[in-house]
Amino acid sequence: MRTYLDCLPCMMNQALRAGRLATNDESKIKKLLDEVGDSIKNISLHDTPVESGAIVYNRIKEITNNEDPYKQTKATSINEALELYPLLENYIKESDDPLLTGIRIAIAGNVVDFGMSKDFDLERDLKYILNQNFAILDYEIFKEQLNKASNILYIGDNAGESVFDTILIKQLGVPVTYVVRGIPIINDVTYQDANDSGIDEIAEIISSGTTAPGTILKLCTKEFVDIFNNADMIISKGQGNYEGLSNVSRQVFFLLKAKCHVIAMHINVSEDDIVLLAS
Amino acid sequence: MRTYLDCLPCMMNQALRAGRLATNDESKIKKLLDEVGDSIKNISLHDTPVESGAIVYNRIKEITNNEDPYKQTKATSINEALELYPLLENYIKESDDPLLTGIRIAIAGNVVDFGMSKDFDLERDLKYILNQNFAILDYEIFKEQLNKASNILYIGDNAGESVFDTILIKQLGVPVTYVVRGIPIINDVTYQDANDSGIDEIAEIISSGTTAPGTILKLCTKEFVDIFNNADMIISKGQGNYEGLSNVSRQVFFLLKAKCHVIAMHINVSEDDIVLLAS
Repeated sequence: MRTYLDCLPCMMNQALRAGRLATNDESKIKKLLDEVGDSIKNISLHDTPVESGAIVYNRIKEITNNEDPYKQTKATSINEALELYPLLENYIKESDDPLLTGIRIAIAGNVVDFGMSKDFDLERDLKYILNQNFAILDYEIFKEQLNKASNILYIGDNAGESVFDTILIKQLGVPVTYVVRGIPIINDVTYQDANDSGIDEIAEIISSGTTAPGTILKLCTKEFVDIFNNADMIISKGQGNYEGLSNVSRQVFFLLKAKCHVIAMHINVSEDDIVLLAS
Repeated sequence: MRTYLDCLPCMMNQALRAGRLATNDESKIKKLLDEVGDSIKNISLHDTPVESGAIVYNRIKEITNNEDPYKQTKATSINEALELYPLLENYIKESDDPLLTGIRIAIAGNVVDFGMSKDFDLERDLKYILNQNFAILDYEIFKEQLNKASNILYIGDNAGESVFDTILIKQLGVPVTYVVRGIPIINDVTYQDANDSGIDEIAEIISSGTTAPGTILKLCTKEFVDIFNNADMIISKGQGNYEGLSNVSRQVFFLLKAKCHVIAMHINVSEDDIVLLAS
């Protein structure tokens, strides 16, 4: 997916939000906005928004001199999600279709996204999404591929959401490799976050090697690209991964909530819709 | 009022909105956003947002090579407002307090603002605001000053809103001088727009000489500043004028709807509140 004009003001908004989470120093945040503003001209509308986002978030680290400004926020998200864990397990236990409920839960976890907004409430949003209609639900194709797959590459998105992912992973019934970012970026899930979320007990964890807040193959390690190309089935969580992978030649199952109107337009759904989309 | 950090991403949003109204050429809008982004570093948090806004909107004119990109939009707003005129007059006729109803109508007209959003519906918003509680209503002071005044300086804001202003002006019962911008900027009211709105029949129209989308005395003509300082009573419409005049030493009556959270915070009200505020 390419960068749209709407993504450019959004980057300034993201920088402001991220800057405020990283520091209380107004002059540092102003400097950040100055530099992000300055970098707008270097952003091509042919690049993916994730590539542009990487510029913003890496500048935040430099200006705030903080390699992981969301560290505490991520820990809080993971703990909040872990507290909901018994509730999540109960939803699965009481479901007529535990796999589909697992998919819904994994999407519900996708509301944890400090890049997009701070305005979410995990428990409230979980209940809403569990009853929300899918705008796109390629469930039959998903089940068909799942039945044939002997391994699954599951590309994680945010810390906290990662706890919700464990619920779906347990329903897949196939060995799963869980993919994390190469370095801390926004509140995206890293190796440590995945461990803290309990993923290590149910899946192998690997890094894509990317320093962007999404998966763009040209920015990933060669090892990861090989695994990506050879995986039987790929599940990709969230917007950042969709932005980078929407045009790849192989099939990917995208699980996400459309949190911005640009992504929604690109998928041809409405903002706030949830989708299980087979590319 | 100074520029807040939140104003900086907002300027990019305004540039995008304004750019789209001025041209369909994506590359021109990208160039506009590049330049506005680039100018963020030249904006001081000590300047008023209106000064910064002037940079944005004047660049739009240069890049689109269009001195009045909102010309058609303004004409449409004025015509829509004129169609509502009999309804507005009827509200006054049926009101127990025609002056206060006139104030409400003048504020309702303030929803016409293409700088802030395209999402307004004059008739719907009018009905809502006619029944909305004021967050601040310095009505007794307003009436007291009105009783003493032998002339009023009424600083207009947007084209279309200007038609609504005529309703209030007719209720004031004192000679009114109506102030317009020096040049077309966003959809702000100019001399021609004020004429087309019927203001010429009930008030003298003068220009403040400003090229900014608001009134900042240091950017106005000396003649205007003299009139401003010597007016018996001043009514200022909308956010742009508030941003520039909130700190002047003389009393000003601000009539506005708080359309952004920064202004709302500055006035100590909530977003979407309406106020008649005596400084």
